[in-house]
Amino acid sequence: MKDIIEIYGIHAILEAIETETNIEKVWLLKGNKGSLFQRLEKALRQNNISHSYVPKERLDRFKNKNHQGAIATISKIEFVEIENLIENAFKKNGFPTFILLDGITDARNVGAILRSSAATGVDGLIIPQTGSAPINDATIKTSAGGAFKVPISRVNHLKDAVYLLKSFETQIIGVSEKSNESLFDLKFKKASAIIMGSEDKGIQSSLLKMCDNSVKLPMEKDINSLNVSVACGIVLYEKKRQQLISK
Amino acid sequence: MKDIIEIYGIHAILEAIETETNIEKVWLLKGNKGSLFQRLEKALRQNNISHSYVPKERLDRFKNKNHQGAIATISKIEFVEIENLIENAFKKNGFPTFILLDGITDARNVGAILRSSAATGVDGLIIPQTGSAPINDATIKTSAGGAFKVPISRVNHLKDAVYLLKSFETQIIGVSEKSNESLFDLKFKKASAIIMGSEDKGIQSSLLKMCDNSVKLPMEKDINSLNVSVACGIVLYEKKRQQLISK
Repeated sequence: MKDIIEIYGIHAILEAIETETNIEKVWLLKGNKGSLFQRLEKALRQNNISHSYVPKERLDRFKNKNHQGAIATISKIEFVEIENLIENAFKKNGFPTFILLDGITDARNVGAILRSSAATGVDGLIIPQTGSAPINDATIKTSAGGAFKVPISRVNHLKDAVYLLKSFETQIIGVSEKSNESLFDLKFKKASAIIMGSEDKGIQSSLLKMCDNSVKLPMEKDINSLNVSVACGIVLYEKKRQQLISK
Repeated sequence: MKDIIEIYGIHAILEAIETETNIEKVWLLKGNKGSLFQRLEKALRQNNISHSYVPKERLDRFKNKNHQGAIATISKIEFVEIENLIENAFKKNGFPTFILLDGITDARNVGAILRSSAATGVDGLIIPQTGSAPINDATIKTSAGGAFKVPISRVNHLKDAVYLLKSFETQIIGVSEKSNESLFDLKFKKASAIIMGSEDKGIQSSLLKMCDNSVKLPMEKDINSLNVSVACGIVLYEKKRQQLISK
C-alpha cells in the first residue's frame, strides 16, 4: 500500500515540510553546516520529523543527485483494485469489515476514520473517485498511520462495490439518522460493510435502499447527528464488542 | 448557559462572519440596497447564516444604534460554577454523566466531544482553566449546538473536581491506553465521570491514581490510540448501551 519516494536537497525538503507532505525520514550529512542547513534542522525538530546524521559513505549511492547532504523519503498512498481488496479480505479473515464513505468531504474526518479502522482491523476502505475528500497529507496525518495500514480502494460508483460485496454474502449496513432501528439492536454477521453518509446529506437514497440493515445511534432529542468519524468509531467498536463476547 | 450579544451595522456583521464568530441570526431592513448591503447578503448565504427581512418598525427599538439596517445576535458560552453544575446534575438525573478533559488542546476535538455529549445527555463538561483548548468559535462550530446544550465548568485543578464528584459517590473512570481492563468489561454505575487525556501525554498520573476504574479500548497491535473525540464517543455510547439494556 505504500509507495516510497525519495527527495533530494535542502530546499526540496523544506518545501515538503511547508506543504505538509508526509515525510517518513530524513538523512543528514554529519558535519554539514550553513544557515540553510540549520534552517532545515530547526524545521525538522519543530515538526517532529524523524532524522539521522550519517557519514558521507552512507550517501554515496546518491552521489549523482544534487542532494546537498540532505535526503528524505516521503510516502504516498497506493490504491488497491476493489476486486483484490475484497478477495484478500475474505482470504485472510473470517470476519471481514469494510467501510464505504458516501461523499465525506472533510479530510480530517477521513483520517480519523482510517485511524479507528486500523485500530479495529478493518479490511478495506472504499471511497468514490469523485465527491469525496482526497486522501491527502491532512488525511495521512490525522490517520496516525492508519492510512498505510488499511487498504483503500477508489471506485466509480459505490453501488458497484455494494453489488460485489453482496456476491460475497456481506451484510450491508447503512448508518442513517432516519433509520428506526438502533445500532444496539443490530446483530453483526461475520462479513459486514458499513456505509457512512456525508455530514450534510447522509447516505444517498439509492444506496440506502441496497442496505440489508439501516441503523441509527440513539440520541437525545434536539440533536440529530454526531461527527461522522465519531459515529463510525462507535459502529466499529459495537462490532468489535459483539465479536469479543461471542468468543 | 447562553449569553446573547447584539451587534449592529453591516461592517461589524461582515467582520463577525470573517472571524467565524458564532452568529445566531441576522435581521435585515426590507428594501435595503447598496453594494455593501449586497456583499452582506452574499456572505450570509455563503455561510448558511439564518437571516430575515423585516419592516422598518421592527428595527425601531434600535434606532439609537447606527445599525445601517442590519442587526445580528451572537452567542457566547457562559461557564457554570462547578458546585452548581454537579448539584444540578444530581437533582435532575438518576444517571448523571460528566466528562473531564485533561489537557485536550485541539478545539475541534473539544467541539466533537461536546456534540457527542449533547447526543448522549451528558450533564457537564469539566475543563481546567489552563492548558486546555479554549471554547472558541471553532469549538462551537464543531459542536453543532452541543456547546450550548452541555453545561461547561472551568476549574483550577481537575483534582478538585474529582474530590467533589467523589463526595457525590460518582464512579471516576479514566480512559487510558496503559490500562489492562477493557471498556467492555466495565460496569457503569449510575453516576459516572469519564476522564479523557491529552492526545500526546494521556491522563496525568496523579489524576489517573484517583480513578476508580481505568479502562482501555481493545485495539489491534501496532496501533496505540484513537482520536480522542472518537474514543470519548465510544465510551459514552457504551454507557448508553448498558443503560438501554438495563431498562
